[in-house]
Amino acid sequence: MLWQHLSAFLSFSAVFGAALAPWMAGDLSVSLPAVNPCCYYPCQHQGVCVRVGLEGYECDCTRTGYFGANCTSPELWTRLYNLLKPSPAFYHFVLTHFRWFWDIINSTFIRDTLMRLVLTVRANLIPSPPTFNSNYGYISWEAYANVSYYTRILPPVPDDCPTPMGTKGKRQLPDAQLLAERFLLRHKFEADPRGTNLMFAFFAQHFTHQFFKTSGKMGRGFTKALGHGVDLGHLYGDNLQRQHQLRLFRDGKLKFQVVDGEVYPPSVTEAPVHMVYPPAVPKEKQLAMGQEVFGLLPGLCMYATLWLREHNRVCDILKREHPTWSDEQLFQTARLILIGEGRRHRGSPRPTSHGDLVPSGSAGPEEKAAELEELYGDIDALEFYPGLLLEKPQPNGIFGESMVEIGAPFSLKGLLGNPICSPEYWKPSTFGGATGFEIVKTASLEKLVCLNVKRCPYVAFRVPDATAGGTAGSSRGGGGGPSTEL
Amino acid sequence: MLWQHLSAFLSFSAVFGAALAPWMAGDLSVSLPAVNPCCYYPCQHQGVCVRVGLEGYECDCTRTGYFGANCTSPELWTRLYNLLKPSPAFYHFVLTHFRWFWDIINSTFIRDTLMRLVLTVRANLIPSPPTFNSNYGYISWEAYANVSYYTRILPPVPDDCPTPMGTKGKRQLPDAQLLAERFLLRHKFEADPRGTNLMFAFFAQHFTHQFFKTSGKMGRGFTKALGHGVDLGHLYGDNLQRQHQLRLFRDGKLKFQVVDGEVYPPSVTEAPVHMVYPPAVPKEKQLAMGQEVFGLLPGLCMYATLWLREHNRVCDILKREHPTWSDEQLFQTARLILIGEGRRHRGSPRPTSHGDLVPSGSAGPEEKAAELEELYGDIDALEFYPGLLLEKPQPNGIFGESMVEIGAPFSLKGLLGNPICSPEYWKPSTFGGATGFEIVKTASLEKLVCLNVKRCPYVAFRVPDATAGGTAGSSRGGGGGPSTEL
Repeated sequence: MLWQHLSAFLSFSAVFGAALAPWMAGDLSVSLPAVNPCCYYPCQHQGVCVRVGLEGYECDCTRTGYFGANCTSPELWTRLYNLLKPSPAFYHFVLTHFRWFWDIINSTFIRDTLMRLVLTVRANLIPSPPTFNSNYGYISWEAYANVSYYTRILPPVPDDCPTPMGTKGKRQLPDAQLLAERFLLRHKFEADPRGTNLMFAFFAQHFTHQFFKTSGKMGRGFTKALGHGVDLGHLYGDNLQRQHQLRLFRDGKLKFQVVDGEVYPPSVTEAPVHMVYPPAVPKEKQLAMGQEVFGLLPGLCMYATLWLREHNRVCDILKREHPTWSDEQLFQTARLILIGEGRRHRGSPRPTSHGDLVPSGSAGPEEKAAELEELYGDIDALEFYPGLLLEKPQPNGIFGESMVEIGAPFSLKGLLGNPICSPEYWKPSTFGGATGFEIVKTASLEKLVCLNVKRCPYVAFRVPDATAGGTAGSSRGGGGGPSTEL
Repeated sequence: MLWQHLSAFLSFSAVFGAALAPWMAGDLSVSLPAVNPCCYYPCQHQGVCVRVGLEGYECDCTRTGYFGANCTSPELWTRLYNLLKPSPAFYHFVLTHFRWFWDIINSTFIRDTLMRLVLTVRANLIPSPPTFNSNYGYISWEAYANVSYYTRILPPVPDDCPTPMGTKGKRQLPDAQLLAERFLLRHKFEADPRGTNLMFAFFAQHFTHQFFKTSGKMGRGFTKALGHGVDLGHLYGDNLQRQHQLRLFRDGKLKFQVVDGEVYPPSVTEAPVHMVYPPAVPKEKQLAMGQEVFGLLPGLCMYATLWLREHNRVCDILKREHPTWSDEQLFQTARLILIGEGRRHRGSPRPTSHGDLVPSGSAGPEEKAAELEELYGDIDALEFYPGLLLEKPQPNGIFGESMVEIGAPFSLKGLLGNPICSPEYWKPSTFGGATGFEIVKTASLEKLVCLNVKRCPYVAFRVPDATAGGTAGSSRGGGGGPSTEL
């Protein structure tokens, strides 16, 4: 089937193949007796290494586009593709220049066709069903069926390898504190070159905390957010019991309290759910929200308040159209509308590389490389996250190519994999009719704020333009072409 | 996107539209005040009915291929399709005749292409992600995310309707016992016209009990088999705790006991799991198996024993090739191989309509119709299951068209939706290498039996041919063409 070959092919060679930095790739050393030969990472191009007998291994090259003992010989189509394939840097250049050309494209149907293709191909780079996780470096039913695991695309380093990264590097990884201080700690303020503001930073943090909820109890490879995506568990709770505590059970609404004539989340005494607050804060001063930790930062609390008001506002609209609907149907339909809105905001104009939050360090590139090599013993033993954060930034960017090339498909998969994107769900009746569907399709950050606060302030993900004086939601310095995050 | 339209279109018109018997379809009566207008089923062609205001409704006709207030006007493509579409009976006729033609097709690549198309189109008739269930007649996040529910394709009758089936029929449904006795009870033995034997009946029962496990505690709309498919939960248990009790934790194997020199499931004293046995059976005589009820029937116990032996046999093969593998990797890989084998057996030669188990009743068709009309008050108020079982059988079949046209896509979806069918999983390394992959691809009922018992008996899903004297696994009277179950 063509699509299978196409997606697998693009997956392995275009993204992970081409973006394979030295700290991700293995090498082809000859295996020593007693060492698991897969620790040498002999299989190239995402071929799967299977240990056979006592000292042997086999590479499964199925659908990698390569063959041979180590999946190193390109098949005919792979050879042709590699010959013709432009580099990601070239794509980036084309996409961020030639504005006149993109203006023409954007005014025709070609735009939609191209975007559909790009989005589908990029989202398909993420394996589905999931493959590996921290405990299973091989395909297994447990890894597939146990939704408590965070998934991985590459298998973890086998347990029985001589060093933490396989065979390269030292037996002990460097101290995380030391790494952070030497490479990531900023010593002076650096303004974001794209003018991203805290409204964006908190939006991103608020948004991602619905699916990144590492389980302290089960361990770091596990999540408590079993929806694994945009289910608005940070608003409705990540389990049914919590949801029921937060619901008013009248007109589909969530519990709330009124302070100075404005609506806020209820106190924990009114909605008894577990919240993480400093011990000095009494229960009646703690706000009850879907996510346990949202009381800790004002920005997260602000968004929780906005979304709470939005939910109850949508309930009022639905109730007006459907006076016969039960509390349950009003609640469930409002939730779907808000899920649709949430996905929409994620697509709002914003910085090219999503995040722009991490300081880029202070030392020069040569010093960094030498220091890292010293800490890890071998540059090929560099860990994944330090590698992502310390890779040479792209022009006009804060992150390197790997962050964008790996992060963007995950982000897209999360958005497009949402059930409301399926043909069975994406229709007016799912959202209570034309009115609800329209709320989903026209959602914006500005509406989220201005329909739920008394006066409409400046609302954007960027600091106001010094010259223009701040048009709400304006796309400053975006370059005009499609976002390269895709 | 073409595939969306195509699948939705075929779904609604080809299968459920064309197969819509009177007891499934609604009608177009004018709504009375105070009654939920959706109880009249005004929306045709699977348009979604949404109650609006106090007495109004709207039909969402998105992707039905029809438009208009009640989704009754065909779009251009629908009109063309309806004009050209042959009936299911015509398909059936073509598929079960012209053997010379199919012999030619079967010897070329067209066979694979056709089969791929047929299987994909048929499996895509089942909505994914799931839509409705017994508690939610509208799309909702709870229905999507709560995997305890059995899914439904059509929404349940709204709670507030005048009669159980909407507006037609009596206020009370007829007594189930009465229905069974009058219409389904057999008074004399009828041999299955296709010679299906108990080996098939028990295989089907053993197989389907892994995913049909209605939860007594949560209610009839819920299942305990959260894998919702071929996960071999009936062999390994439907939860991790039960699995661990059944495992030997050595060489990947399951616990067993040896009786008269042959391997059987362990006793409940050796593997302490909940089993359903008559109270007189002492613990040490109860066999511990994945499924709680498999001790109740000899045929189920027999298959449980065969699969247990098969699992441990596969573990031995894997261990020989991979002496360094942990118990966990041997267990998990053997499980995937057995899941592959299980899917394979389901595709073995067998009766055209799957089942052939249900007695077809005794009264003539006219009497039946009159009696049913009397019991239900209106033939349009006939329930789903009685309708399926009592529909006029197809020529040479035991079931009517609806059973085949509705049952087959569900069966296919269950098989093709299994993760091992995905490109990420379907490769040798998933099954431990070429040897394991070969076991999956060449699995057969005969192998399951003959590799796990001391002598190889007659093995087939049919009674032995009176003339041929019983070739194992032979396909008697299958007609030669592709199975119309698809």
